[in-house]
Amino acid sequence: MALIVQKFGGSSVGNPDRIKNVAARVAKYRAQGDQVVVVVSAMSGVTDNLIRMAKELMPLPSEREMDMLLATGEQTTIALTAIALHAIGIAAVSMTGAQAGIVTNGVHTKAKIQNITPKQVHELLDAGNVVIVAGFQGQTQEGQITTLGRGGSDLTAIALAAALSADLCQVYTDVDGVYTADPRIVPTAKKLPEISYDEMLELASLGAKVMQSRSVEFAKKFGVVFEVRSSLNDNPGTIVKEETASMEDVVIRGVSLDKNQAKVTLIGVPDKPGVAARIFKALGEAAISVDMIVQNVSHGSGSPSTDLSFTVDKPDLLKTNKVIDSLRIEIGFQAVASDEKIGKLSIVGVGMRSHSGVAAKMFETLAQNGINIDMISTSEIKISVVIDLAKGEQAMRAIHQAFIG
Amino acid sequence: MALIVQKFGGSSVGNPDRIKNVAARVAKYRAQGDQVVVVVSAMSGVTDNLIRMAKELMPLPSEREMDMLLATGEQTTIALTAIALHAIGIAAVSMTGAQAGIVTNGVHTKAKIQNITPKQVHELLDAGNVVIVAGFQGQTQEGQITTLGRGGSDLTAIALAAALSADLCQVYTDVDGVYTADPRIVPTAKKLPEISYDEMLELASLGAKVMQSRSVEFAKKFGVVFEVRSSLNDNPGTIVKEETASMEDVVIRGVSLDKNQAKVTLIGVPDKPGVAARIFKALGEAAISVDMIVQNVSHGSGSPSTDLSFTVDKPDLLKTNKVIDSLRIEIGFQAVASDEKIGKLSIVGVGMRSHSGVAAKMFETLAQNGINIDMISTSEIKISVVIDLAKGEQAMRAIHQAFIG
Repeated sequence: MALIVQKFGGSSVGNPDRIKNVAARVAKYRAQGDQVVVVVSAMSGVTDNLIRMAKELMPLPSEREMDMLLATGEQTTIALTAIALHAIGIAAVSMTGAQAGIVTNGVHTKAKIQNITPKQVHELLDAGNVVIVAGFQGQTQEGQITTLGRGGSDLTAIALAAALSADLCQVYTDVDGVYTADPRIVPTAKKLPEISYDEMLELASLGAKVMQSRSVEFAKKFGVVFEVRSSLNDNPGTIVKEETASMEDVVIRGVSLDKNQAKVTLIGVPDKPGVAARIFKALGEAAISVDMIVQNVSHGSGSPSTDLSFTVDKPDLLKTNKVIDSLRIEIGFQAVASDEKIGKLSIVGVGMRSHSGVAAKMFETLAQNGINIDMISTSEIKISVVIDLAKGEQAMRAIHQAFIG
Repeated sequence: MALIVQKFGGSSVGNPDRIKNVAARVAKYRAQGDQVVVVVSAMSGVTDNLIRMAKELMPLPSEREMDMLLATGEQTTIALTAIALHAIGIAAVSMTGAQAGIVTNGVHTKAKIQNITPKQVHELLDAGNVVIVAGFQGQTQEGQITTLGRGGSDLTAIALAAALSADLCQVYTDVDGVYTADPRIVPTAKKLPEISYDEMLELASLGAKVMQSRSVEFAKKFGVVFEVRSSLNDNPGTIVKEETASMEDVVIRGVSLDKNQAKVTLIGVPDKPGVAARIFKALGEAAISVDMIVQNVSHGSGSPSTDLSFTVDKPDLLKTNKVIDSLRIEIGFQAVASDEKIGKLSIVGVGMRSHSGVAAKMFETLAQNGINIDMISTSEIKISVVIDLAKGEQAMRAIHQAFIG
């Protein structure tokens, strides 16, 4: 008998028939004698519809009221899921985030979980119930309803698994697991049986859309082993867990391509202390998230100057250019250039730490394919390069072929 | 400065545009310096849609889960209403029933309010907010979400008005107030400026669909004066309050016709103690609500027997006949007859207590119009007769003409 937390996203509970499928899957585990906690999202489309109505009333509605509004989405799903389980003879009780003891801080629309008191969840499980918990939501100490922001339901599942000391946490999605690359671009991509938290984090931040980084970070922090798997079949998925020695035998875990970045280059930036800090502070204050930053060595004598390049999310480019313009006099750089037609190609793997020559092999493969490198950035388990967007997919296939097959 | 509770039903908040209208109305009172508590129902259609999905999963879903499900309807409306008020610059905070301190017993889908602790509502009002409370819902001492059943949002408004010692409670609906008769049937019907709780109760139980009896009973018990008025215009509505001496000057307050009853007659019932009790106990246990009961005097010598007639809601007729059949041997009546083609015509007014001849005038008027009376039942402030359904509207107009004009 194991205690299992199962999380189902919006498309898995998108209508009563799909909710029946979820119930049938839960029933299978229950029939094995497992205790099951189910975490569900709002039915697909429901949240968007609520947001649409709110924005019809006001372009920027109060975050406190948006939480009140959006929390109804998951509350609807938990009740329907409980009813679907009852319909096939399984005892089940639904709980809102608040009822499940999920206490958050008061930052509406992106609250952080502060603690979980799953006493009632345990009691209901011990009494033979499947417990269905509303994902994405919690409550402050003062009883205000909060939501956890993007990827919140995954976070609920992983945090509950930690608080309940669950034996297993399964995140059901519409893909079979984590792949070495997007199979739509790289037909030879393989499903990974396992991946380390750090590799998953790098892939998540690189545009592999399986999960938000924060849920993986939470799982890493609390050592929650979880499985990403499909709600459409019974195939085993990808286990995400702490790095093991054997993982290092594989040099590269995956290749990803992020097409959603733009590059900004400041030409002739005075090379003196505090200039870079001034620029990125201003961008941070404008809530612009900067990804790669590359600064070339100083050139010229007299007053030394340098070129500074960085990437931002494409939708932030306009805002970025405004911020940079406002700094032109203060900082005194010569010119700005920006380029939206870039792709960020990355390879990720804990194995690269103990295998030398990974970067060389990557650059060589790109050169053999006639692909020029614009920017390079590396971490301990990742190498990213910025290249021409038009050559992105070709480069991805070539790199995948070279490292993975 | 007054403290006003305003209640808006499902059609008044049926879409974002209508919610804007509600906000505009609230703003007018706020501009006068009044403190306003708004109670809202689910947007029209929302509750039906939730019920439909639940029944797709299971014909008789768990009542606890139905409460969890349906409570989302009002929660959606409160958030949208708060946002609509923000949009026109009015400070507003939404609260679920639980947050507003509405504690109920644990009878899911028809919970009774046990007490209200409106401390937080008061604090938010004093801080300058409009407080928007979800109607129809509460929470048990143990933190279970409950709903109050039919007419629950009216009840929330009246109970809150009592708990807050509000100066005024306005129940907005799609009619202008309480009329002397249904204007669709009696074109000369007049809107009543005021009506007593007891008269309103009789009218409510007689098929005038303005409000459920329980809300009026609650208002009577706690002395909450409320106004029924239209959300579509600014006309004054009907004030519902304790009976005053001047009300007795008017003999008849209203005429109503209930087309939703069926008549059941047991012929040749042994006239001995306990028989009627046995019959109505069995009906009560089957949750069949019996309205009028008429028993004729015993006839025949030897073993005396009598005829017993009563009315039930039409949808309950089949179930009623089953219950009666099951008692046939035990009780030993001779036959059963039932009739769905009846109408119950009633006149109501506290004035009839001090005016003699009201019943005579009613019966005379019906006789003059060639309408036969099947059953008669009277209370202190009401006379009801069962007549042929086909003549119901004609009878209603004649009675209205005779008493009111």
